[in-house]
Amino acid sequence: MLPTRLFSRVAVSGCRRLLSGSSQLVQLREQSASDGVVSIELCRKPANAMNGELAAQFNKALLQAEKSGARAVLLRSQLAGIFSAGFELTELAGSNRERLIEFYTEIQELFLNLFGTDLVVIAQIQVRFVVIAQIQGHCMAGAMALSLSSDYRLMSSNPKLLTGLNETQFGVAPPVWLVELFRFVAGNRNCERLVAAGQLIGPQAALEAGLVDELFDNEAELLKKTESTLSRYLAVSPRARADVKRMLRSNLINRLDSARQEDMNAFCDYVLDSRVQAQLGQYLDKLKAKKA
Amino acid sequence: MLPTRLFSRVAVSGCRRLLSGSSQLVQLREQSASDGVVSIELCRKPANAMNGELAAQFNKALLQAEKSGARAVLLRSQLAGIFSAGFELTELAGSNRERLIEFYTEIQELFLNLFGTDLVVIAQIQVRFVVIAQIQGHCMAGAMALSLSSDYRLMSSNPKLLTGLNETQFGVAPPVWLVELFRFVAGNRNCERLVAAGQLIGPQAALEAGLVDELFDNEAELLKKTESTLSRYLAVSPRARADVKRMLRSNLINRLDSARQEDMNAFCDYVLDSRVQAQLGQYLDKLKAKKA
Amino acid sequence: MLPTRLFSRVAVSGCRRLLSGSSQLVQLREQSASDGVVSIELCRKPANAMNGELAAQFNKALLQAEKSGARAVLLRSQLAGIFSAGFELTELAGSNRERLIEFYTEIQELFLNLFGTDLVVIAQIQVRFVVIAQIQGHCMAGAMALSLSSDYRLMSSNPKLLTGLNETQFGVAPPVWLVELFRFVAGNRNCERLVAAGQLIGPQAALEAGLVDELFDNEAELLKKTESTLSRYLAVSPRARADVKRMLRSNLINRLDSARQEDMNAFCDYVLDSRVQAQLGQYLDKLKAKKA
Repeated sequence: MLPTRLFSRVAVSGCRRLLSGSSQLVQLREQSASDGVVSIELCRKPANAMNGELAAQFNKALLQAEKSGARAVLLRSQLAGIFSAGFELTELAGSNRERLIEFYTEIQELFLNLFGTDLVVIAQIQVRFVVIAQIQGHCMAGAMALSLSSDYRLMSSNPKLLTGLNETQFGVAPPVWLVELFRFVAGNRNCERLVAAGQLIGPQAALEAGLVDELFDNEAELLKKTESTLSRYLAVSPRARADVKRMLRSNLINRLDSARQEDMNAFCDYVLDSRVQAQLGQYLDKLKAKKA
Repeated sequence: MLPTRLFSRVAVSGCRRLLSGSSQLVQLREQSASDGVVSIELCRKPANAMNGELAAQFNKALLQAEKSGARAVLLRSQLAGIFSAGFELTELAGSNRERLIEFYTEIQELFLNLFGTDLVVIAQIQVRFVVIAQIQGHCMAGAMALSLSSDYRLMSSNPKLLTGLNETQFGVAPPVWLVELFRFVAGNRNCERLVAAGQLIGPQAALEAGLVDELFDNEAELLKKTESTLSRYLAVSPRARADVKRMLRSNLINRLDSARQEDMNAFCDYVLDSRVQAQLGQYLDKLKAKKA
Repeated sequence: MLPTRLFSRVAVSGCRRLLSGSSQLVQLREQSASDGVVSIELCRKPANAMNGELAAQFNKALLQAEKSGARAVLLRSQLAGIFSAGFELTELAGSNRERLIEFYTEIQELFLNLFGTDLVVIAQIQVRFVVIAQIQGHCMAGAMALSLSSDYRLMSSNPKLLTGLNETQFGVAPPVWLVELFRFVAGNRNCERLVAAGQLIGPQAALEAGLVDELFDNEAELLKKTESTLSRYLAVSPRARADVKRMLRSNLINRLDSARQEDMNAFCDYVLDSRVQAQLGQYLDKLKAKKA
C-alpha cells in the first residue's frame, strides 16, 4: 500500500509561512488549457540552488497543478544555461540541526511528491499528471531528484552541459534515496561508476547511461519532442498508466517513506559532522576564490 | 525452494476438457530427432490471440515436449507477420468472474511453466530443455510472456514489426508479473518508459532495450542463428545451466507463485471494474470500425 | 550494518601457514609513493589459476596494502596474455571436504575483502583505497571475482582475449555470489544470456555488457587511462566515496557474509557430487589431450 497523503502537515504549513512576503522562486504557468498542460518553472538566480523555500514553493506548485486538474506538467528552468545546481550549500555549511530539519523536510516532501506523482492522493484529489523534464542547462547534485523523478527527460545536446551526482567532490555522499533513485534509473554499474567518483557527464553520455531519454538540438526540436512525448502519454488511460508506475516505483517509495525519520537523523548527523563541515567549508572557499 | 510441480490439477484437467473436440491452436513438431529439438507453434488465426484454450494447449505441448525428452524447444508462429497479439480481448470484455478465472488460471500456468522451464519437476520428470523464441511477426501485450520467458530471443529485423506491452493503450495495466518480467529483462528505466505509455517499438529498438537478443534478416539467417544458439546451449551441462537459471529466476518465480490467488483476485477485480470494461468496449469498437 | 572485520581468524592464520616456505604467487609493489598507489600482481605460472595459496597470499597483500596506507591498488597479472583462468580445477577434481573447505575459505575471504574494500575495518584500520583492475589478458571463471569486485576495470582491446563465467562448460554452476556479482554489474539479461550458456566474450562485447569500463589499445594508453582514473577517484573525499559504495554494495555483502556457512556447505556438496566430479574429470582429460 502506498501512503495516501504524502504532503505532510509540516510541509504545507511550512509552505504558507515561507511564501508570505518572500520572492517567487518557482512559477506555475498554464501552457495549453485545452490539453491541461502546465509548466513548473524554477527562477531562483543565479543557479536555481534548492533552498528550503524553493522546495516549499515547488511542493505548493505541484499541489496547485493538481487542483487545477492538470494532465501534464513540464518541468523547467527560466534561467539560461542552468537547470539547477542542486541543494543550496549554504543551507548545509555552518547550519544547525533545527535549520537542517526545516530544509530537509521540504526536500523529502519534494522528492516523494514528485517521484510519487500519479500514485498519491493529495487532499482527496487523485494526482494524475505526467511530468516531463525539459533540461536546457546543467543539472547536478540534488537537482537530479527533479530530473530522475520525472516520467520522461528531454535534455539539450549542448556538449558543454553537465549532469550527475557530484556530491563526493565536495566531501559528502548524496542522501541514500538520491543514490537509490540514480540506481533505479541507470542501474548498479552506471551508478557506482559515476556517483562514487562524483563524475559529471555530458548529454550524450547521459543518454547512453539512461539518465535522460532524448536529446534536442534547439528550441524548435524541444517543442517538437515535447509535443510527441505529450501525445504519447496523454493518449493512454491515466489510471492504467498510474497502475504501471505504481508497480515499478512503489517499492522504493515505501522504503523511503517509511524511513523518513531515520533519513532525517542520518542527514543531520552527517552534515553536522565536523569533518564534513570542514570539507564543505573548503569547497565553498574554492568556489568563492574562483569567482573572485 | 522452487515449487516442484507447477502444472496444477486444474490446468491439466482443464487441458483435457478443452482439447476434446476443439481445433488445434498449438502444434508440437519434431525438428531434429538426433538433437532432441522440437518446436511449439502457434496456429490460431488470425493473430494467435491467447484465449484459455490456446494457453491450455500450450501447457499441454510443454508437457509433451518434456515427456519426449526434448533438449530444446523452438517457440514460433505458423502465421505470417504475427507472432501473437496477446490475450484475446473478448475473453476480458463482457466476461464474468467464472470465465475469467478459467482463462487466467491457464495463463498463470503458462507463464510459470515457461519462465520456470528447466527449474521445475513435472510429473517426476526433470524439465531440461532450453527455449528459443523465433519471433517472425508482431509480438505484443500478453504474448510478451512467451518471448520474455524464453531463454533466448531471435527477432526478424523487418522494421514494420512491433513489440512491447501496449495494454495501457486499451485502458488496462498489464498483470504485475508481466510488468515484472519486462523489468527483469529490460531494466527499470526501459520498462517504465515503454510500458507506462503503452509504447510498441520496432526490432532495432527492441534489441537496444534488451527485449530481444539478436535480429535476423531472412529465413536463412534465422536458421543459421538458431543453429549457433542451439549449439551453444546444448554444449553445456543441462544441470549446471538449470542451476544458473534457478539462481537468477527463482526469486521472481517464488514471489509470483506464492501470490497466485492474490493475482487472480486482483486480475478479476480489475478487469470487471466498470471503467475498465468501458475502456475495453471502446477499444474493441475502434478495432471493429477500423476493419469495417 | 556491515561486518567490521571480514578477515577471519582462519584466513589470517591459514595465510601464515601457507606462506611459510612456499613460493610467491602474488606480489605487492609500490608504484607511486607520493600518491599512495601500489599494485597487487598475480604471478602463478602458467595461468594464475587460483588455488588456496594464491587466494591466501592475495588476502595478505590486501592487508599489507592497507597497513601501508595505500590510497589506490592496481590489480594486475605479471604473465603475458593471461589475467587469470579462475579457480585451480585440481583443487576441485578428486578433492575431499577438508581440502575444499580450506580452499574455499580463502576464496570467500578474498571475495568479501575485495568487494568490500573501502567498507570494512581490518584490524582497526579503515580501508580506504580504490581498486583499479588492469586486465591485459584472459579473465574468466573464478577470476571474474577479481575484476568484478574492483572499483573500475580497464581491459586490453586485443580481440583474441576472452572474459566471462564459463563454468557451465565444464559441468558446474558458478557459486551463487559470483553469479550475483555478475548480475550486479551487468544486469539480469546479460547475466542469464552469458552465464547460463557459459559464454566467453571479447573485450568489445564485454564493454557493451558493462563487464569492463574502458578498453586500452597498448601499454601507453593503459598508463594514460590509469592516470586519469586515479586522478578522478583520488580527487574526491575517500570517506564520501566509501559511503556511496556502501549504499550500493552493502546489501549484497551482507547477504553473502551472513550465508557463508551455507555457501560453504552448498559448494562442498556440489563439487563432491559424483556427477559433477565426473564432468570435471572429463573436462580435465580434454584439456590434457589438447596439450598433448
